[in-house]
Amino acid sequence: MALIVQKYGGTSVGTVEKIRNVARRVARTRDQGNDVVVVVSAMAGETNRLLGLANQLSEMPNERELDVVASTGEQVTIGLLAIALTDMGYKAKSFTGFQIPVLTDSAFVKARIRKIDGDTIRDALKNGEIAVVAGFQGIDETGAITTLGRGGSDTSAVAVAAALSADVCEIYTDVDGVYTTDPNICEDAKKLDKISFEEMLELASLGAKVLQIRSVEFGMKYGVRIHVRSSFNDNPGTIVTKEEEIMETAVVSGVAYTKNEAKITTVKVPDRPGIAAKIFKPLSDANIVVDVIVQNVSVTGYTDLTFTVGRGDYKKAMMITEGTAREIGAERVVGDDKIAKVSIVGMAMRSHSGVATKVFETLASEGINILGITTSEIKISCLIEEKYTELAVRVLHNAFGLGKPASG
Amino acid sequence: MALIVQKYGGTSVGTVEKIRNVARRVARTRDQGNDVVVVVSAMAGETNRLLGLANQLSEMPNERELDVVASTGEQVTIGLLAIALTDMGYKAKSFTGFQIPVLTDSAFVKARIRKIDGDTIRDALKNGEIAVVAGFQGIDETGAITTLGRGGSDTSAVAVAAALSADVCEIYTDVDGVYTTDPNICEDAKKLDKISFEEMLELASLGAKVLQIRSVEFGMKYGVRIHVRSSFNDNPGTIVTKEEEIMETAVVSGVAYTKNEAKITTVKVPDRPGIAAKIFKPLSDANIVVDVIVQNVSVTGYTDLTFTVGRGDYKKAMMITEGTAREIGAERVVGDDKIAKVSIVGMAMRSHSGVATKVFETLASEGINILGITTSEIKISCLIEEKYTELAVRVLHNAFGLGKPASG
Repeated sequence: MALIVQKYGGTSVGTVEKIRNVARRVARTRDQGNDVVVVVSAMAGETNRLLGLANQLSEMPNERELDVVASTGEQVTIGLLAIALTDMGYKAKSFTGFQIPVLTDSAFVKARIRKIDGDTIRDALKNGEIAVVAGFQGIDETGAITTLGRGGSDTSAVAVAAALSADVCEIYTDVDGVYTTDPNICEDAKKLDKISFEEMLELASLGAKVLQIRSVEFGMKYGVRIHVRSSFNDNPGTIVTKEEEIMETAVVSGVAYTKNEAKITTVKVPDRPGIAAKIFKPLSDANIVVDVIVQNVSVTGYTDLTFTVGRGDYKKAMMITEGTAREIGAERVVGDDKIAKVSIVGMAMRSHSGVATKVFETLASEGINILGITTSEIKISCLIEEKYTELAVRVLHNAFGLGKPASG
Repeated sequence: MALIVQKYGGTSVGTVEKIRNVARRVARTRDQGNDVVVVVSAMAGETNRLLGLANQLSEMPNERELDVVASTGEQVTIGLLAIALTDMGYKAKSFTGFQIPVLTDSAFVKARIRKIDGDTIRDALKNGEIAVVAGFQGIDETGAITTLGRGGSDTSAVAVAAALSADVCEIYTDVDGVYTTDPNICEDAKKLDKISFEEMLELASLGAKVLQIRSVEFGMKYGVRIHVRSSFNDNPGTIVTKEEEIMETAVVSGVAYTKNEAKITTVKVPDRPGIAAKIFKPLSDANIVVDVIVQNVSVTGYTDLTFTVGRGDYKKAMMITEGTAREIGAERVVGDDKIAKVSIVGMAMRSHSGVATKVFETLASEGINILGITTSEIKISCLIEEKYTELAVRVLHNAFGLGKPASG
């Protein structure tokens, strides 16, 4: 008998019939003798509908009130799921953010969880009830309703699992688990049985969008085993867990990529302290998120500074940067809005030399020019021309032996 | 400067554009220097949509969870209205049932308000904010979400007004106020400037459906002046208040009616103690609401017992009563499913003799046969054949001089 937290996203509870399916799966887990806590999102489309109403009333809706409106989506789902479960003869009780309570800071629309009191849910479990918990929402110290931002239900689930010291937090989604790369690009992409929190963080932020980043951070901080699996079948998925729990580690766990990037280089920047700040401040003031930043070592008193932004921000970022370049006396600004980023991620990289070399050789052997490089302890990212994305992913996936063994 | 509670129903907030209109009206009241608390219902149709989802999952949805689902309707409206107000530059803050809190008993889907803590709202008002309060909802002692049942937002508004000792509780609706009778039947029906709580209770329960009965009871108990008025114009409506505040009182304030009634008479019932209970117990067990009950005084050891039910319950009630009649040895049961009830209501009736006589004479003069009579201190009701309803209302309205003075 285990304590299992299960999380179902918006598409898993998108219709009344799907809610009934979730109820059946929850009931089966309960029938196996487990204590079950279910965390759910709003029915698919509902959050957008609610935000749409708000946006019709204001171009910049008051964020405290936006959370009052948006949080109703999850509240509807918990009530409906509890109704489905009680209709099937199970004891079930729903809990909103304020009823648990899930205490957050007061950063409306992007609040962070501070503390979850596990007692209310524990009482329900002791009472033989299935606890059905609203994801995405909490309250701040003043009792105001907050939401955690898009994808926040994953974080809710992992945080609840941490508060209850649950045996596992199962995240049900529309994929089977975490793959070595995008199966749409590499036919032989392989589902990973286990992956470390650290690798998952790098993969998630790079585009393997199966788990919200903050939920992984939470899992890492509190040591919550996360099981990412499909809500359409009973196959085991991918366990995200501590590095120590993973016996056999490949040097590289996966290949990630993001398209739709754009690259901007400020050429011949006078290399003085504070120059980088001068370039990036106007961008962050304009709410433009900068991803990769590459700065050459200066030997001549001048340096080239390259960064990437999302393609949607390209024109605005170019304009801003051209202004900054004139101000600081840089020579010129050049840009390219057809860029992709390909990354390999792996814990064992730390203790293996030659991984970077292998990446560069592999790409070079296919004639793929590298436009920029950044590395972390467990990740190497290369900027390339977008048209080479699929090819780069495939050759890297193959070079590091990530594919399924050839069958037959 | 006054403290004004305003309540807007579902049709008044049925669309984003209508919510904006409500915001404008609220803002105007604020601009006049008043403290304003707004109580709102769910957007028209929303409660039915939510209950529909629940009913797809269960024929008898768990009522605790039904309230979790249903209460989101009002929560969406308060958020949207607060967004509209802040967008117009006003300080506004929304409050759910748990945030105030509105403490109720635990009778889910039909909870009763026990206590409203006015401090949270008072703090907001002191802070210069317009308080936007969710009607219809509360929490019980365990923190579970409750709802007050259909029309409960009127009660929420009056209860909030009582808790804050507001100067007036304005109920905005789609009619101009309370009329002496149905203007669709009597062209010269007149809007009442004032009416007592007691009269309003009798009129409301008889079919003048502008105010939820329980809100009137609440207003009477706590002495809250209620102003029923139209959300489509600025005309003064009808003030419902204490009898003492009403200077000129007509003998009769209004004529009410209900159609779609059915009458069942058990003939020659042995007049023994407990017989009435024997007849009515099986009906209440079958959830049939009995309205008027008339029992003749027995002089022979036998009595005739007549009662009315809604027409939809007629067949079932006949069947049940026929069974009971055999059991208790009554002679037979006769029924009529084409019955209406016409009533006159007036505080001054208590001190005026001859009112009943005038009613009977007026109906008789038009050849309308009276099939049953019940009276209270301030009301006389007559059962008549349904086809005479409009005629009866018109002649009574005229006989008691309720119409507008003839113009021109």
